[in-house]
Amino acid sequence: MTNTEKPVHLWFDELSTVEVAKFAQQGKVVIFPVGCVEEHGEHLPLCTDSIETEYVALEVARKTGCLVAPPFRYGIVNAGRNFPGSITIQFNTLFNVTKDILSELTRNGFNRIIILSGHAGTSHMVALRLAAQEIIHQNGEKNGKQHTRIMVLSDYDFAEELTEELANIKDGHAGTIETSRVMDIRPDLIKTKGIPSNYEMPRFEVVLHPEQYFPSGVHGDPTIATKEKGQKINIHVINQVIKLVQELEST
Amino acid sequence: MTNTEKPVHLWFDELSTVEVAKFAQQGKVVIFPVGCVEEHGEHLPLCTDSIETEYVALEVARKTGCLVAPPFRYGIVNAGRNFPGSITIQFNTLFNVTKDILSELTRNGFNRIIILSGHAGTSHMVALRLAAQEIIHQNGEKNGKQHTRIMVLSDYDFAEELTEELANIKDGHAGTIETSRVMDIRPDLIKTKGIPSNYEMPRFEVVLHPEQYFPSGVHGDPTIATKEKGQKINIHVINQVIKLVQELEST
Amino acid sequence: MTNTEKPVHLWFDELSTVEVAKFAQQGKVVIFPVGCVEEHGEHLPLCTDSIETEYVALEVARKTGCLVAPPFRYGIVNAGRNFPGSITIQFNTLFNVTKDILSELTRNGFNRIIILSGHAGTSHMVALRLAAQEIIHQNGEKNGKQHTRIMVLSDYDFAEELTEELANIKDGHAGTIETSRVMDIRPDLIKTKGIPSNYEMPRFEVVLHPEQYFPSGVHGDPTIATKEKGQKINIHVINQVIKLVQELEST
Amino acid sequence: MTNTEKPVHLWFDELSTVEVAKFAQQGKVVIFPVGCVEEHGEHLPLCTDSIETEYVALEVARKTGCLVAPPFRYGIVNAGRNFPGSITIQFNTLFNVTKDILSELTRNGFNRIIILSGHAGTSHMVALRLAAQEIIHQNGEKNGKQHTRIMVLSDYDFAEELTEELANIKDGHAGTIETSRVMDIRPDLIKTKGIPSNYEMPRFEVVLHPEQYFPSGVHGDPTIATKEKGQKINIHVINQVIKLVQELEST
Amino acid sequence: MTNTEKPVHLWFDELSTVEVAKFAQQGKVVIFPVGCVEEHGEHLPLCTDSIETEYVALEVARKTGCLVAPPFRYGIVNAGRNFPGSITIQFNTLFNVTKDILSELTRNGFNRIIILSGHAGTSHMVALRLAAQEIIHQNGEKNGKQHTRIMVLSDYDFAEELTEELANIKDGHAGTIETSRVMDIRPDLIKTKGIPSNYEMPRFEVVLHPEQYFPSGVHGDPTIATKEKGQKINIHVINQVIKLVQELEST
Amino acid sequence: MTNTEKPVHLWFDELSTVEVAKFAQQGKVVIFPVGCVEEHGEHLPLCTDSIETEYVALEVARKTGCLVAPPFRYGIVNAGRNFPGSITIQFNTLFNVTKDILSELTRNGFNRIIILSGHAGTSHMVALRLAAQEIIHQNGEKNGKQHTRIMVLSDYDFAEELTEELANIKDGHAGTIETSRVMDIRPDLIKTKGIPSNYEMPRFEVVLHPEQYFPSGVHGDPTIATKEKGQKINIHVINQVIKLVQELEST
Repeated sequence: MTNTEKPVHLWFDELSTVEVAKFAQQGKVVIFPVGCVEEHGEHLPLCTDSIETEYVALEVARKTGCLVAPPFRYGIVNAGRNFPGSITIQFNTLFNVTKDILSELTRNGFNRIIILSGHAGTSHMVALRLAAQEIIHQNGEKNGKQHTRIMVLSDYDFAEELTEELANIKDGHAGTIETSRVMDIRPDLIKTKGIPSNYEMPRFEVVLHPEQYFPSGVHGDPTIATKEKGQKINIHVINQVIKLVQELEST
Repeated sequence: MTNTEKPVHLWFDELSTVEVAKFAQQGKVVIFPVGCVEEHGEHLPLCTDSIETEYVALEVARKTGCLVAPPFRYGIVNAGRNFPGSITIQFNTLFNVTKDILSELTRNGFNRIIILSGHAGTSHMVALRLAAQEIIHQNGEKNGKQHTRIMVLSDYDFAEELTEELANIKDGHAGTIETSRVMDIRPDLIKTKGIPSNYEMPRFEVVLHPEQYFPSGVHGDPTIATKEKGQKINIHVINQVIKLVQELEST
Repeated sequence: MTNTEKPVHLWFDELSTVEVAKFAQQGKVVIFPVGCVEEHGEHLPLCTDSIETEYVALEVARKTGCLVAPPFRYGIVNAGRNFPGSITIQFNTLFNVTKDILSELTRNGFNRIIILSGHAGTSHMVALRLAAQEIIHQNGEKNGKQHTRIMVLSDYDFAEELTEELANIKDGHAGTIETSRVMDIRPDLIKTKGIPSNYEMPRFEVVLHPEQYFPSGVHGDPTIATKEKGQKINIHVINQVIKLVQELEST
Repeated sequence: MTNTEKPVHLWFDELSTVEVAKFAQQGKVVIFPVGCVEEHGEHLPLCTDSIETEYVALEVARKTGCLVAPPFRYGIVNAGRNFPGSITIQFNTLFNVTKDILSELTRNGFNRIIILSGHAGTSHMVALRLAAQEIIHQNGEKNGKQHTRIMVLSDYDFAEELTEELANIKDGHAGTIETSRVMDIRPDLIKTKGIPSNYEMPRFEVVLHPEQYFPSGVHGDPTIATKEKGQKINIHVINQVIKLVQELEST
Repeated sequence: MTNTEKPVHLWFDELSTVEVAKFAQQGKVVIFPVGCVEEHGEHLPLCTDSIETEYVALEVARKTGCLVAPPFRYGIVNAGRNFPGSITIQFNTLFNVTKDILSELTRNGFNRIIILSGHAGTSHMVALRLAAQEIIHQNGEKNGKQHTRIMVLSDYDFAEELTEELANIKDGHAGTIETSRVMDIRPDLIKTKGIPSNYEMPRFEVVLHPEQYFPSGVHGDPTIATKEKGQKINIHVINQVIKLVQELEST
Repeated sequence: MTNTEKPVHLWFDELSTVEVAKFAQQGKVVIFPVGCVEEHGEHLPLCTDSIETEYVALEVARKTGCLVAPPFRYGIVNAGRNFPGSITIQFNTLFNVTKDILSELTRNGFNRIIILSGHAGTSHMVALRLAAQEIIHQNGEKNGKQHTRIMVLSDYDFAEELTEELANIKDGHAGTIETSRVMDIRPDLIKTKGIPSNYEMPRFEVVLHPEQYFPSGVHGDPTIATKEKGQKINIHVINQVIKLVQELEST
């Protein structure tokens, strides 16, 4: 399968029905970016997860010729759900949105899909994976091979690979990595320098007020974030996702 | 209730948790734009409904100081659902996404909301209205007044008010009005001149292949669309939505 | 397909299992009447929508030899839902009742169905249409033709065609048209002369108390209603539905 | 609580909104008749269960002044579900229809309700009881007493009390009792003399084709049915239901 | 079909994946025991229904070579649901647990299944039967025969056949029969001698507090229970279930 | 809160209603063990996860006086779901079973609960956690403190803490740790010596046939397992869970 032609527009829905039909026949890979509306400390915007992942998706599309489906910018927020501005949706809602969109993409002939989530919460990722699994099962096999191939990942899975090199070990939510990435992507959205802090959630207990365990909403040190680090991380993530696209294109 | 301060960023999720908390206290109106991935003939992009409504929402926010929630760019497509590129989601999926987001906005203290849909399909609008109704009922009354106020509309409700002036009487989906609006908002997304046509769906019968009744996917005359008409329509729509924001701010 | 024999009884369920089997083989059209329990002013009964549509269905059956399924006399009431006596059911309930009944009718071999609703509320009609759509999709195609044909309409769609001739322009719920029809069908259920009035619901806002906008529960002028007008309307509606039956019988 | 005034019309929905409001204040009992579309041999109509129960409900209303809600003529058919003409609905559909209607009746102020089912299938009755139970739990207690009182029964529960006197011991579905009752209520719906037969379903196995175990669809002897027996049974059932109404009126 | 080899372990899940594969090919019958956590007077444990049915299942397996699936020890409790210690689950929960487990057993090749419930409540049994029915329908026919055979019963169906011989006529919940059985199976769980009593629930009314009608939670006379009676009953039940296994093995 | 009295029986449902009422008043902690029916190589039984966790729960109960609810021995199996004998249930089924049981335990007055799962799959654990979260939210706060406290964990969370000491680094499913534990708990269920192997699942792709990536169904080296290691691990796990019980008892 060869993707001979690159789309002029990277977003799936900026194409016309005629253009999409052509790319479906070419077997284009589609990236579906899933974001989140979630507190990220006083220094980062609520859309941090969304812009990271959409930026990566577009850069990957630019380089590989794949398409980017309209993003879904809402997710399941757990630890930060009670902070002002956080919006969390039900598990079944995320599952059904994802399932419906995957179902329609495959009905349209797009059978190579990457769900790229900016948010990496466990429930959130499970909802995405179970939706993908349902579609995989529904579409079944063709000529002895799995008919539809879907990858589900958070771009944070790749970003954190640079933690040791660029941040403190306990870096995480709204810390050095994430702050650096936003500095690279949308520096205008950096609000303040941020406050370094760490938190530990109860290991097993399910609590009503998780925010009591991390009043700052930050895990890591945003003050050592730099645009250069962000660039390095984003390039790394983009390159890793490009490899996934290439793997999907190869079969 | 006075909105004394305008946000620097118009998008809800470009704010930090601290900034959102402030605007919640000020009683800001929030516009939630709902788009669609739907064929719009060979001349317009699939995202036509999405970009119209997001453009309006942002302009209204710029002028009134209200906020714009992250858009949901998927909807229920009926007549055009079998065209390449169309993505239709289940009724209950749209209902639940909308309900969850409204529920979280009101939990955050935002009790004045406008759901602004680019798509105007009947099932689609009913799903949005029923979600709003459920939240209204859950939130109930406070001091003898309805606690939460939600308006649900398609921006096409206003756009079509200029049909007689700017288009043929039978203008509609992907016709003069819509083409003109896209010319004004995103001229780079105009693909071709478009083909004038009209169609009539069966009045009562529910059919498997509605696309057989309008092979062009167009209802109206895109060839007489102009950027100037588009500007006129968009300004009209923006002004009408501004009035709705003001009405919500007045109580 | 020819319907050579007229049933002695018009109601589907007044037949025996043996008789129904015969009519299924003949490809009889089935009308499924859906009513509503909804305030209709002080002058009309709550069952106004139900009796209108059942009367039409029976008359059509008498003339065409089609069958009438047992009616479902409950629907989704919106504007009048808080008036005493109104009974509104959930969207998914109406959807599932309709889907189950359609599913069983087609399993029995009845593949030409008209859902005839007395109530014309938007949510109500969408629930009926989506149920029909699901069955259409499940039953799919046979020999390249849609296997099951289902029409969904409100008999008010036809009745209002005589508004200009017989009523004021702003006639609607419990107005001249509806009052005249009940005068013709069940004069014993006319309670009072009725009070002429008109109302305007908020155009976009979803409200807790829609009844505050039309305290009379009437839209139009019941005082100019007459039995003769009712007869004229009912005959018109019946004739139009007969045409639909004939269209379904023709394929 | 006294029911001082008898309604002119017995059907709940033949009243106007004004009339219903008055009867709600008087604490009227409401009977909700639930029927079924189910084969009843070659001699009885599919609506046998529906007409029995509606007849009883109306007679009880005539004598006690209670009201009869619009019937729901569909139910869960098990053993006879594959016979031509049988229509069976999903368990959750029956549950939700019943719950919605009960919920609205109690919202309207009617807190004394009898669900009177013509059909007595186990799943069918469980769906009705669970719906009643959910409403009972939702409405809870008032002044230390259960706020809403709901009785759920099949009129066959009373009819079969006369089996020993009027029929063979193994009388049941479409047998002497049921045939006699229809002879009394709607003699025009008696199709043939009927064929006496008995059947035994597998005691524990859940089978795909229960109709293989009773090809006649009859359990009992319809040939010894008479109008006089039917009258006797119907009067007995009516009197028993009147006692239930009186018991509900007494608190 | 011959079951040539008896498993060393009777519990399905005490086998390894390799062992189960072998027994699936042999067409082994699987018994799925369903219990309950329900008050059984002051003299019997909450697990009474569970231990009765698991004991029977294991004895039957020992003698026939069939397998016993891991038990589900929760059910739908109605009359005793408000007593301390009773745990009742939702109708749909029991339905779905049962459906999922049956679905997986048949996917594994086990197409002869007995659901053996210790609890005999009507809703409880309907949930089990409907789950079985759904699987039967999904699996359909193979070579003109029902592909999957499932029996659904309460072991009390057999136990009560000895009521006349061993107990008072009005014996039932936690009475002579049940107490005797526990004396035979787990004498260490007999707490006290028990208090003979009988109760009558309202025949038709659905009540909030059913426990008011039987404060003792006992229906029958536990004081005349003996280990010998228990042994007799248990052997009877075991023999009857063995016959069912043999019937399933015979086809 | 002091637990002054130890129950004679450790299983919740081996108590009578009277005994449970007493322990509810004492504020006893309840452990709810959740197992799984899942392949564990050719050397271990399908119930490996179930017996590990039930053994731990009973030992903890013996030492602390807490109670053990009847186990639920079914779970969500992912990687091993297609091996013979594996039984996987739907996400919503596990969620609802858990929610219903937690809901009833808290209604009974047991507000300190540990969900102890033998299986540690991600979807499986998320279903358990979300069920706990829903109950926590429903029960809310009392005197400014979270009314109900629920901990959710897999006993493997503790067992794997000894991996470095007792096994190879890449030990996991059916490896040294698990095999050793079963040797300690139920040596009669050890089938063979087992085959050391390791596998790597695709990092991101959701696949139809995960079993292709680990044909042995084993991750680790079962051949170096010993009863002594198992004892050491089990004691460690038991001691850690005892600490959790004590933490719950302390508030």
